[in-house]
Amino acid sequence: MKTSKRVSSRFISAERAAEMIGEKGLAHCLRSIATYIEQDFCRWQDFDKSARVANHSQDGVIELMPISDEVSYSFKYVNGHPKNHRYNLPTVMAFGVLADVDTGVPTLISELTLTTALRTAAMSAVAARALARPDSRRMALIGNGAQSEFQALAFHHLLGIQEFHLFDTDPAATAKLMHNLSQQGIVAKRFASTREAVCGCDIVTTVTADKTNATILSPDMIEPGMHLNAVGGDCPGKTELHRGVLEMGRVFVEYEPQTRAEGEIQQMPAEFAVTELWQVLTSHREGRRDASEVTVFDSVGFALEDFSALRFMDDLACELGAEERISLIPELPNPKNLFGFLLDHPAQAKPQANTRTSACVA
Amino acid sequence: MKTSKRVSSRFISAERAAEMIGEKGLAHCLRSIATYIEQDFCRWQDFDKSARVANHSQDGVIELMPISDEVSYSFKYVNGHPKNHRYNLPTVMAFGVLADVDTGVPTLISELTLTTALRTAAMSAVAARALARPDSRRMALIGNGAQSEFQALAFHHLLGIQEFHLFDTDPAATAKLMHNLSQQGIVAKRFASTREAVCGCDIVTTVTADKTNATILSPDMIEPGMHLNAVGGDCPGKTELHRGVLEMGRVFVEYEPQTRAEGEIQQMPAEFAVTELWQVLTSHREGRRDASEVTVFDSVGFALEDFSALRFMDDLACELGAEERISLIPELPNPKNLFGFLLDHPAQAKPQANTRTSACVA
Repeated sequence: MKTSKRVSSRFISAERAAEMIGEKGLAHCLRSIATYIEQDFCRWQDFDKSARVANHSQDGVIELMPISDEVSYSFKYVNGHPKNHRYNLPTVMAFGVLADVDTGVPTLISELTLTTALRTAAMSAVAARALARPDSRRMALIGNGAQSEFQALAFHHLLGIQEFHLFDTDPAATAKLMHNLSQQGIVAKRFASTREAVCGCDIVTTVTADKTNATILSPDMIEPGMHLNAVGGDCPGKTELHRGVLEMGRVFVEYEPQTRAEGEIQQMPAEFAVTELWQVLTSHREGRRDASEVTVFDSVGFALEDFSALRFMDDLACELGAEERISLIPELPNPKNLFGFLLDHPAQAKPQANTRTSACVA
Repeated sequence: MKTSKRVSSRFISAERAAEMIGEKGLAHCLRSIATYIEQDFCRWQDFDKSARVANHSQDGVIELMPISDEVSYSFKYVNGHPKNHRYNLPTVMAFGVLADVDTGVPTLISELTLTTALRTAAMSAVAARALARPDSRRMALIGNGAQSEFQALAFHHLLGIQEFHLFDTDPAATAKLMHNLSQQGIVAKRFASTREAVCGCDIVTTVTADKTNATILSPDMIEPGMHLNAVGGDCPGKTELHRGVLEMGRVFVEYEPQTRAEGEIQQMPAEFAVTELWQVLTSHREGRRDASEVTVFDSVGFALEDFSALRFMDDLACELGAEERISLIPELPNPKNLFGFLLDHPAQAKPQANTRTSACVA
């Protein structure tokens, strides 16, 4: 039985993603993405997983992150270029695709720069709900760049964090974060150093960008019962924690084979024990054991989180309607006659202008 | 010094690709892509190469094929679903991206279904120019599906092949190919079996689609001096040649680590000798040695060919003008203020409709 399927792909531009998030509210979106992530992590065994494929260059890296279950396939394209500020460009830019495993048709092409910021923050909150002390109210936020607002809002809305202690080597970044948070009714205090910002906090989130083995947190800054959410160390040669910090508590990771190469634990021997987070979420392994334990979420970002986020954005686009579509794949009356597509689309003097400025500008 | 760079990407839809190819002529495009491929293969050492990343499922495979030099990065998304005809869908669909290595900005998003057909045919012609007898005039084409017209036209225009012997298990596919070729003024004859089609040919091209270890060509069909262009065997468990055929001549491959897993030589032991084609193109290794030698191009399709094809399509889009752009990456006045992009794009009741039907249909 032949059933003709559509081959045009749904398209979510950066602007449309922002509008949709605005329409549903950021808190709602962060909560929903966290739920999608938890659902997908709880069926960990269903996925064909691999460490991402990275092409490294002098100033950065470009990565592809594929993953699939029996129904859907997704991948993300993402770069990391810490020096991009010199071009007035973001350090991290991304887009991604959802596809049908059954046919290979790419069903969704979506921006993922904004969406990655939401999913990374949602993932941090998912981990912290399992690992931080339930009475956590104060979080230090070290690194106040593009990801920082999303981390603060995820921890505010999903964990009830009320007070934020900020530090960044760039005072303008901290000023920007304080301004954005105050507009959301959130209290944040600026500190003169990481040490001062961290002091007395329940949770410490590090989201710095340098592609270097930095020591943002050293063992003497760590207090009993702290949860460390280490987000910035995410590729070979890019770490944020002194190795002594990793020896102070238990370390939790997304996908061990990838984190061994990219995470804070790249500093540790191969036998250094870690726990994959899905095991905690499915109650196969313990999360936090007591109020004085130090827990570390060595976050690098795993393809499954993008799979979840793409599913969420796809569902959101369907719910909100007015979808755009993009013609990446030729629609063929006879699929064995690809050549006929050339004959059906002869040369034009000039293609029609595209009037949708947000999607395509001349 | 801060220089603001554009972050919107050039976009080439399937329809626009067909129009551009129509405008320049298919023969010109095949010749140009062959030239781009030869140029890139001749600087083989400049590239960061890896075997493609494949997610296999019951009915097919979805692959990502990244590659980069110091300036540009590219990847292709491509599926292979031999049973897609039941949905009236192509078995192979593809799109790809060119990006700046320096910043990670994706500069081009392009259809690659049509373009892959051109680049695969151009690659086959590049190999045959180095490996087939210069006096070759007659080619058998076994498998008359979506790729077959492009193979025929590439060998006609780039090698001077005048006569085509056709066979396919699906007579309708052969009828379609004969019709399309006759409109291009090309003589083609239909045969009742592979054996009959192959008899007396200088070159034999196999482009069958079954994901199985098939025996399209067996040793008794092979004549002295033949060049075999084995295109269809391109993933684990998908081959076209009897292993005895591989032992009759010298085997040439694109990128050995990938072809060992995916090509005809997956049937052979790891020590079975092959020659990478770039070595022949740069005169580091011999191609054909004499008129009686059997040569085999064990083609699986390598990322570098898509890099070349994307460069060609990008240059073509610039030359022909009237480019479309697509907004995958948010444009940020302050790249550290990604959150501000949300505030700058509040919810809309309804997004504007897109009137360019070829790019986006509602």
